Amino acid sequence: METQTWIQISADSDFSYHNIPFGVFSTVCNKEDARPATRVGDFIIDLREAERQGLLNGELFSKLNHKVFQGKTLNSFMELTRPHWQEVRRTIQSLLHTGSALDTNKELQSKVVIPFTDKIILHLPAQIGDYTDFYSSYTHAYNVGVMFRGKDNAIQPNWLHIPIGYHGRASTVVVSGTDIHRPRGQAKPPTAEKPMFTECKRLDYELEVAAFVGGPANKLGEPIKVDSAEDRVFGFVLMNDWSARDHQAWEYVPLGPFNGKNFGTSISPWIVTLDALEIFRVDLEAQNPEPLPYLKEKRHTSWDINLEVYLHADGNAKPDILTKSNYKYMYWNIAQQLTHHSVGGCILNAGDLLASGTISGPQKHEFGSMLELSWQGTEKIALSEGKERTFIQDNDQIIMKGFAEKNGIRVGFGECAGKVLPALPENKYY
Amino acid sequence: METQTWIQISADSDFSYHNIPFGVFSTVCNKEDARPATRVGDFIIDLREAERQGLLNGELFSKLNHKVFQGKTLNSFMELTRPHWQEVRRTIQSLLHTGSALDTNKELQSKVVIPFTDKIILHLPAQIGDYTDFYSSYTHAYNVGVMFRGKDNAIQPNWLHIPIGYHGRASTVVVSGTDIHRPRGQAKPPTAEKPMFTECKRLDYELEVAAFVGGPANKLGEPIKVDSAEDRVFGFVLMNDWSARDHQAWEYVPLGPFNGKNFGTSISPWIVTLDALEIFRVDLEAQNPEPLPYLKEKRHTSWDINLEVYLHADGNAKPDILTKSNYKYMYWNIAQQLTHHSVGGCILNAGDLLASGTISGPQKHEFGSMLELSWQGTEKIALSEGKERTFIQDNDQIIMKGFAEKNGIRVGFGECAGKVLPALPENKYY
Ligand SMILES: [Ca+2]
Ligand SMILES: [Ca+2]
Ligand SMILES: [Mg+2]
Ligand SMILES: [Mg+2]
Ligand code: NI
Repeated sequence: METQTWIQISADSDFSYHNIPFGVFSTVCNKEDARPATRVGDFIIDLREAERQGLLNGELFSKLNHKVFQGKTLNSFMELTRPHWQEVRRTIQSLLHTGSALDTNKELQSKVVIPFTDKIILHLPAQIGDYTDFYSSYTHAYNVGVMFRGKDNAIQPNWLHIPIGYHGRASTVVVSGTDIHRPRGQAKPPTAEKPMFTECKRLDYELEVAAFVGGPANKLGEPIKVDSAEDRVFGFVLMNDWSARDHQAWEYVPLGPFNGKNFGTSISPWIVTLDALEIFRVDLEAQNPEPLPYLKEKRHTSWDINLEVYLHADGNAKPDILTKSNYKYMYWNIAQQLTHHSVGGCILNAGDLLASGTISGPQKHEFGSMLELSWQGTEKIALSEGKERTFIQDNDQIIMKGFAEKNGIRVGFGECAGKVLPALPENKYY
Repeated sequence: METQTWIQISADSDFSYHNIPFGVFSTVCNKEDARPATRVGDFIIDLREAERQGLLNGELFSKLNHKVFQGKTLNSFMELTRPHWQEVRRTIQSLLHTGSALDTNKELQSKVVIPFTDKIILHLPAQIGDYTDFYSSYTHAYNVGVMFRGKDNAIQPNWLHIPIGYHGRASTVVVSGTDIHRPRGQAKPPTAEKPMFTECKRLDYELEVAAFVGGPANKLGEPIKVDSAEDRVFGFVLMNDWSARDHQAWEYVPLGPFNGKNFGTSISPWIVTLDALEIFRVDLEAQNPEPLPYLKEKRHTSWDINLEVYLHADGNAKPDILTKSNYKYMYWNIAQQLTHHSVGGCILNAGDLLASGTISGPQKHEFGSMLELSWQGTEKIALSEGKERTFIQDNDQIIMKGFAEKNGIRVGFGECAGKVLPALPENKYY
């Protein structure tokens, strides 16, 4: 990067001059005072204050007759259009240039720019109206299919035609750093005659990338065309779709996952925009069979984003890496997912969340869940300090990371982390 | 009823002195000015104005340090506790008594009491955070099971142990009176080799009763015990869970219904409280097998609420009745549904919606969907004026009604109505 910036950004920072992600923070002094921000290197730029100070003065923003960064979430900003999002990113970048108002006016700088320390609390970036989880990585669908139905029937007949998805639970989407209690619920081990009420014995992670919907909502009944679908994508976060495999296995026929999923879903706090990711766009293989016309794109692409999952075992000094995958391992991409979601006329609102589904690559170390890595618990996963796992144990921490790199430019997501606490005592239940 | 009221309420009104349901309205003069209300006979009582005028002056309400009826939804009121809801109902009833302030002060009356005319617009009563649909009527589960798997495997092994449910789509829950476009989507007729992109050919209704959640939310990870679960139920509405059977059949394996359901879900506008319904409570048969301890209640009950579905065929002078069912035909009741929903620690917020699932009674005229009435389209349903149907046709209207009656007391839900408009032209899709 040749651009001269007055802020120090280390070359390996996820939050480069090129990134400019959006999130919501407060400080320990006033936890409730949450406000929108971006992050650059080891600094936060307070967008509520920046807007108040008149720093967001691009052409489109000057024409707005309301402020968009004064609430506790990014929803008002997300409801605008892609050109608005692009303008704010460019405006912030220009404020980082040497000699900008934010560089030279130190009083202004002290109001708007805040060092990123342990006094900063990050919040959910948006009020999530609805959350949907897709199932769009071929390897993941194949692996799960082989486990449950054998090799010959691994991929269901509908999977190659539909970006399969299900409605998830928005109320329990939580921000990175939130602890998750091991859930209790019903399970029926294959050998048992009756189901039992039991704490989850097969607690798993699912490595996903989730898109925040943006833009003006489509009306009830109105579909979104696939070639304009990306205009409705505000940006991406990492997601850990925590899964209680034993509960899920017993409940999911015929209406799909429910308590196996709704006890918590963690996302990373900074939303990375499509503009930051554009240079990492990659073509995907042509789909075979050819998708139905409403899902057929001019160009079928995803983004080359490295995805990693670490398990920090209870008592160990350091985390171990379990998964190395990539967002390019998608069969159905976000444009197709979003278009399919709306094809019956479903309203997609700014702030809605659409998750990719578990992203597994073709090689074993690229599998995006412990279900796959331990092949349904039949193979131990070796960790450091002589430990091993098949599923997540109490007080283990799962940490997901994501970053793209090309031509010396790095755009990262930071972390999506969460620790598993023991189940609550049984007397809390009956 | 011996109580003397100054408001004229006809004996057959759904909105009796005993009822006092909660909803949200505006007028055609100022559509956007939506505000909470109750309905009594052919009048609306504006609760925003009543609160401003100091009429809601019960003991608990006097202690609140914030107003709860000044927003555009009932959420603030729903977030309070059952004693608060009870107090407001009693306060409103006392305002209806002859000689009350609202009777004698005509200026006050003209501000607070509004005739229910065609100038009144009813809105969704709450901002719905999450919507869940259960599947808890035995006859419905059995009928669908017989159709898809035959008599011997009709009831899935998990159904008698779990109040099966799935997450639905909150963004497209709409209030009675909203037209629904026939959705397009993917379907694969049994004889076809490949799926097609097609307008829904098997558009159906599902007769349901939906509960609005109320009370302070449980924390992430914290379950709700079954014997206190009703404290988290604010009240009930009628629901038509519109269903695109052909789309649903092709998409639902393995993750459940998606586009087959998310194109629209209609609810009646007035929320009827548990207090209004208490005298209609009935015991249900003991469950066999016995539920697991967390689902076992001191007393297993539902409510005796008559439910009716009418189809007003395009061009006909009058609607025909298709379904006569009852809310007592529940195997799993609302307390068990809500408890099961929270058992893994899922947060239930005030304003969330939990639907019963299609309520079918044991007799044929009690079946709660056309899928069952026409037995998957194999039998014609006769209508007046020589018409017949297997599924819903364009410009047909579906009207649901619900009411309870006992000892001369009537508590009704009003209507949940919706008309099906033709599918949009294909050039809207690609
Ligand atoms: Ca998932
Ligand atoms: Ca239903
Ligand atoms: Mg989850
Ligand atoms: Mg529906
Ligand atoms: Ni806790």
